[in-house]
Amino acid sequence: MRADGLAGGDGGADRLGELIPLALRGMAAGVAERGGPVPAGGPAAVAAALVAERGEPDQATPRVTEPADAALGEPGRQPAGAASVERGTPGHANSGPHRAAPAGRGWLPRRGVGAEAALEELSRLLAAGSADPADPACAAHLHCPPLAVSVAADVVASALNPSMDSWDQAPVASELEREFTAGIARLCYPEAENPDAVVTTGGTESNLLGLLLARENGIVQPVCGANAHHSVARAAWLLGLPAPIVVPCEGDRLLPDALDKILTPGCVVVATAGTTNTGTLDPLPEIAGVCRRKRARLHVDAAYGGMALCSDTLKGKLAGLELADSVALDLHKFGWQPVAAGLFAAREAADLGALTVRAEYLNADDDTEAGLPDLLGRSIRTSRRPDAFRMAVTLHALGTDGLGALVERCCATAAEVARHVEAHPGLRLWGPPELSTVVLRPVAADETGGDELVARVRRALLEAGSAVIGRAALPTGPGGANQLWLKLTLLHPHATAVDYVPLLDRIVATAGAELVAGRESPVAS
Amino acid sequence: MRADGLAGGDGGADRLGELIPLALRGMAAGVAERGGPVPAGGPAAVAAALVAERGEPDQATPRVTEPADAALGEPGRQPAGAASVERGTPGHANSGPHRAAPAGRGWLPRRGVGAEAALEELSRLLAAGSADPADPACAAHLHCPPLAVSVAADVVASALNPSMDSWDQAPVASELEREFTAGIARLCYPEAENPDAVVTTGGTESNLLGLLLARENGIVQPVCGANAHHSVARAAWLLGLPAPIVVPCEGDRLLPDALDKILTPGCVVVATAGTTNTGTLDPLPEIAGVCRRKRARLHVDAAYGGMALCSDTLKGKLAGLELADSVALDLHKFGWQPVAAGLFAAREAADLGALTVRAEYLNADDDTEAGLPDLLGRSIRTSRRPDAFRMAVTLHALGTDGLGALVERCCATAAEVARHVEAHPGLRLWGPPELSTVVLRPVAADETGGDELVARVRRALLEAGSAVIGRAALPTGPGGANQLWLKLTLLHPHATAVDYVPLLDRIVATAGAELVAGRESPVAS
Repeated sequence: MRADGLAGGDGGADRLGELIPLALRGMAAGVAERGGPVPAGGPAAVAAALVAERGEPDQATPRVTEPADAALGEPGRQPAGAASVERGTPGHANSGPHRAAPAGRGWLPRRGVGAEAALEELSRLLAAGSADPADPACAAHLHCPPLAVSVAADVVASALNPSMDSWDQAPVASELEREFTAGIARLCYPEAENPDAVVTTGGTESNLLGLLLARENGIVQPVCGANAHHSVARAAWLLGLPAPIVVPCEGDRLLPDALDKILTPGCVVVATAGTTNTGTLDPLPEIAGVCRRKRARLHVDAAYGGMALCSDTLKGKLAGLELADSVALDLHKFGWQPVAAGLFAAREAADLGALTVRAEYLNADDDTEAGLPDLLGRSIRTSRRPDAFRMAVTLHALGTDGLGALVERCCATAAEVARHVEAHPGLRLWGPPELSTVVLRPVAADETGGDELVARVRRALLEAGSAVIGRAALPTGPGGANQLWLKLTLLHPHATAVDYVPLLDRIVATAGAELVAGRESPVAS
Repeated sequence: MRADGLAGGDGGADRLGELIPLALRGMAAGVAERGGPVPAGGPAAVAAALVAERGEPDQATPRVTEPADAALGEPGRQPAGAASVERGTPGHANSGPHRAAPAGRGWLPRRGVGAEAALEELSRLLAAGSADPADPACAAHLHCPPLAVSVAADVVASALNPSMDSWDQAPVASELEREFTAGIARLCYPEAENPDAVVTTGGTESNLLGLLLARENGIVQPVCGANAHHSVARAAWLLGLPAPIVVPCEGDRLLPDALDKILTPGCVVVATAGTTNTGTLDPLPEIAGVCRRKRARLHVDAAYGGMALCSDTLKGKLAGLELADSVALDLHKFGWQPVAAGLFAAREAADLGALTVRAEYLNADDDTEAGLPDLLGRSIRTSRRPDAFRMAVTLHALGTDGLGALVERCCATAAEVARHVEAHPGLRLWGPPELSTVVLRPVAADETGGDELVARVRRALLEAGSAVIGRAALPTGPGGANQLWLKLTLLHPHATAVDYVPLLDRIVATAGAELVAGRESPVAS
């Protein structure tokens, strides 16, 4: 097939029908090659595998910098391959986001290898070098294994490429998004007069919208718990607002009394329904009560916990959510969508009017007047993907009942794993899970190893390729000082406690091994 | 298959191998059903098709609001279906972004229909109701037909779901992104010491980054041409900066002399390399010279024109780009990626340091020190999709030479279509295309119909389902007043002038018919 064949139009489905099996074959080969939740060897090994795939500049393959190409390459520099390997070596200081870029053209060859070879090779590479959340031992983050139905739906969205900035680029996609977001708005606000919701790139953008809508209402001082996601402070910075006033927490839960003491009418409070560290939910009814009394605005970051609304047995945890002015939800957490699948719901559709913008080529007044729906004010982006399509297909396939059952299963598994942690002589449980996060600490860390041991256990498991677990700093130390904990965020909808018990033993064994290693050579900072 | 089967892990490729063919079958059926570039009938017909698919509330299918479900539905409201149809009716005032939401649950059923049925039905619906840029007559916007190779690659990215906010969620995906963005940085800045680039959701986010990096360098006054994209002013608003100072243009090109008169050291200039209206490029060397003399910062919005750098014959148009402090590029324009595929390049990697942020769970100091790459400072998002993967696969398949050839073909086609416009007695050409945009006006609009006729021609072709063409307001009227033009943005890499000549005739015929209709019933405002 020509490398430049199109995905849409008359022959599009046939072309995809030829190419996608090659990508899937590469993916299956890579999954088998990896043989675990994450590639072993850490950053150095992964970078080396990539360099091996790309080839070295001096091999003069058609894919890399050619010395003659002075305008684009930089002959005489160190090969990117060697630099990449060095970059990833543990202990190397240059691992920040703005470390030196690889020299030469990077992954930007002049001549191509064709669609078939590129797809199969790189799909294998990606699968072999990924942390796969479909493996239960990949349990660090709010990083879910996507449902096949959503991934399949996304193929059609990609192929037809509706761009959600004007109706004439996305006729039915924009109507379907509108129906879907209306459903989400109603899920969050069952009793509101006129709620609405828009699609975002995730909790970070949704939290930014929460502060932006407040700002446009003249409310410029953010307030959040010490348990809030870092995106709240980042949004304040981005929007030119003052840094958030931080309210103390207890048990990773914002204290309404402390909030009451500092709140004034010029404030927008961000509460959390499912913290990133522990999955704890803030006491929403009490917080909403304080906000109402003090005439403050309330945004709830329910990126993690929000879709528990789909479960009749769990939705009580979110009581009070409907009192918020706005809500962030992520269907790439509970919702099992590939990233991104963010949503932002507002109790009053009129509040979203702050996003209104005119661009003559996209939503001229006379077009809108003539009946062409105006989409531009439904996002701070312009071009955007119809992520609502795969969300709508997923919900059409499973229903909210089906999705709610998956949320329940993850939460039940977490509760059971927590009981195993409590019963384990080598582990300490932070507290009972409220959603699906289990926070634990090797007893050896309390006795001798301290936080450094905790951090080393996590990195050792990652480096060995045997598990991806998370970390959380929580104020459980003497005098409320932060202490480092390990975290299992359970988002695998089919895993059971049996899948996690061996991981608990491995954590304890690794802690023991790291303690011995630490005694032999002092723990590196 | 179970509706909740996973896309990743051991059986993931097999599950996708079963489901994707159903989605593609639905898509092919929908494409055939549409039989043109866009569904006929306008918003009313599209909304009605969606309602028909979903079913009416009173049919009591399992997919819609059940009256008993008082917590989630709102019994007694008007059915969403009827509301949707009315909403789309031409002339209906309620077509803005914050029109009333559909009543009831929208597209959020309690019970599902299973993965197979949901996928095939909704894929057909999406294809039948889309404006397909793989049809040459869909030529309104910078809305490209995606390459099959990119869409196929995206399947693997979706299935494995690397999230680009920490290395342990995206080991090889993050390294590959780094290699790819390094190549892009080098493409923009062949001679710079240490350029870097990051992935964005498109020109809107890239332009925001351009202003944000300026702001973090203490430069807070944006300046742009009257030809700049609306996202520049929107970014200033979002970031809490003053509204941009707007510099006059001639021929949709910023006037360097006019810039010289107003520029001060506290300014950041946004120049455009390929305007949305006409594809014109600002005189970058002159603008860069003015900026250097006045010690102003320069960001270039090359979202449209940037990838012409891949063509040896076209890259001269972008001379001076390498003098900018930062550059926006979109591979979902020239690059043939599904939305989103934005890039932001900075001449000095250190400038991106403004994005640095710490979140203990994602990039703790001790983890970074121990060699885990820190990804969080490479975006203003947190979770994000590995869009670099499909871009890298595409470039691996085609090479920059292959991609450059496609850009050349679109530009050559535009030049030829422009000659046909010039030769057409019923049309007037705005000016010779610099990239792939052809701007034209029916002569009938100059004679009697005016701007209203131009707008009606566009809407009539859209309503008939026969073509999707764009509009551009340009200061060609008496005394420099804006006049409305029609716009063909040619991004179909395989179409030739032959595909567009019939469209030119259809525009003239439609203008004639609309004139007659206007005489019979006065032109609606």
